[in-house]
Amino acid sequence: MPEPVIYNEILIIGGGLIGSSIARAVHENGAAGRVVMIDHDKHVCDRLRALDICERVDKMYGASNADLVILAVPPGVITKTAKQILPHMKPGALLSDVGSVKSSVVDGVTPVVPHGIDFIGGHPIAGTEQSGPDAGFAGLFTDRWCILTPSPITTKTSPAAQKLKRFWRALGSRVEFMDAAHHDLVLATTSHLPHLIAYALVGTATDMETVTKSEVVKYSAAGFRDFTRIAASDPVMWRDVFLQNKDAVIDVLGRYIEDLTALKKAVRWGDGETLLKEFTKTRTIRHKIIDAGQDVAAPDFGRNAPQDIQGD
Amino acid sequence: MPEPVIYNEILIIGGGLIGSSIARAVHENGAAGRVVMIDHDKHVCDRLRALDICERVDKMYGASNADLVILAVPPGVITKTAKQILPHMKPGALLSDVGSVKSSVVDGVTPVVPHGIDFIGGHPIAGTEQSGPDAGFAGLFTDRWCILTPSPITTKTSPAAQKLKRFWRALGSRVEFMDAAHHDLVLATTSHLPHLIAYALVGTATDMETVTKSEVVKYSAAGFRDFTRIAASDPVMWRDVFLQNKDAVIDVLGRYIEDLTALKKAVRWGDGETLLKEFTKTRTIRHKIIDAGQDVAAPDFGRNAPQDIQGD
Repeated sequence: MPEPVIYNEILIIGGGLIGSSIARAVHENGAAGRVVMIDHDKHVCDRLRALDICERVDKMYGASNADLVILAVPPGVITKTAKQILPHMKPGALLSDVGSVKSSVVDGVTPVVPHGIDFIGGHPIAGTEQSGPDAGFAGLFTDRWCILTPSPITTKTSPAAQKLKRFWRALGSRVEFMDAAHHDLVLATTSHLPHLIAYALVGTATDMETVTKSEVVKYSAAGFRDFTRIAASDPVMWRDVFLQNKDAVIDVLGRYIEDLTALKKAVRWGDGETLLKEFTKTRTIRHKIIDAGQDVAAPDFGRNAPQDIQGD
Repeated sequence: MPEPVIYNEILIIGGGLIGSSIARAVHENGAAGRVVMIDHDKHVCDRLRALDICERVDKMYGASNADLVILAVPPGVITKTAKQILPHMKPGALLSDVGSVKSSVVDGVTPVVPHGIDFIGGHPIAGTEQSGPDAGFAGLFTDRWCILTPSPITTKTSPAAQKLKRFWRALGSRVEFMDAAHHDLVLATTSHLPHLIAYALVGTATDMETVTKSEVVKYSAAGFRDFTRIAASDPVMWRDVFLQNKDAVIDVLGRYIEDLTALKKAVRWGDGETLLKEFTKTRTIRHKIIDAGQDVAAPDFGRNAPQDIQGD
């Protein structure tokens, strides 16, 4: 069923995984009358045009008729990009973003937003390990949470905030309003720490001098391969996330290293009781995640067994 | 195409994920004429009979006519189980296992194997986060590696070793012979460390006093949910793995904590260059794993987006 038009025109700046997925979703459901996209990269612009997921693709900023402008660029350049597009936005329009870190964005953007323009930070908790315009798909946001961070100026109950909520729900998301600082702590736990852990593990495993890279690859189905998916995520975006959410990341990472060190001690002392206790309590949370519709119940994420490989 | 019969009769001790998967695979491809299973748990025996994946299910040990006996019990009880079944095995038969740790098994079982019986340790690098007889499936070993650890008595080129290799290949596996100690170091890297990391992360995340469990569940799609799958693995089996592969696990875990601490330092000092370098080199290994047929190329492991959840 097509959605009623929520915005007459939207402008998406950045044509990567998230930006192109928003365009595709809107293209499918009609939540906006027109979609314009801007990307500074000529090759991305060419791909966006070829994909035919929006009405117009520009390389440069110019006068915008958009009712909603979404910054879908890496966290490190969100404030800079906001400053560039704000002078071109029309009165009454709303500025938002999709960055994985919110305090630094809110702190950077809020002071430069002129009277007559609303700003609400946003973060759709959705993505894959792939990046670029071709990696996007319309269903990316289906049943995923989108966190919006209102401000004292543009509050949760303001028409601008409620309209943006309707927009994200039209894209299939569930929407929650949250304080930017709390968002950063929650995401440091559920997202930033897991990514750092995965990046570090892949580094450790491939640096072992007694285990060859070929062995790591061959026997990766024993657990390691799961981590390589996350560690294949966009390096630039993740560098920015860690630089911009430093305090929260250092806090949860410090706790994690403590917990890991405690498990190391349990292994060293042959403390099977502690290990069994720790390993038993973790099953519950998996069931809760599946019950909450945030993951599939099928074993191995329902991976298909590859059928085209011959034994040696 | 049915396989030629490799063993007239096999006995599988332990009817969990791995044991019941072997039975199912043999049931489908006919690599053994008859499959007998033993499990000490009455409920498991009942399920195995109901599943109809073998010719006979016993609760107790008795005179065995099997040409191959596979110990598919947790690592901590493999040696004990070997001692119990060996007196009932017939001359010329082969004893093997499927344990995730090999040195402790080889060290424990080798001295008790009588003349006339062969013993080769085995480890199929396959499994899911689920356990029990109902979790098994015939395709579990397809294209996965199975490592066999021969001994000076039963060497790699012995008829017994070559026959066991044929058996695992009939189950869809690729087979490699390896020294038990080297196996333990490789698997400490590709399997044991990833599991310990995942168990620890789920512990850390659910112990945060400033982030609620409900928030961890809701926003788990940002990365965390991947770790909960691995951390939902059989706790008893994994306790045994860490207790039995202590030295190798402590070695790789120590290195990992060092690498993680270095990344923490880079975050603290805002060292974007180091972060970008570390995050960039990890993509290559993912591509190698996919090229080697050890994981699917589809984003998010090809997870299906759940469609049955309504937004709030």
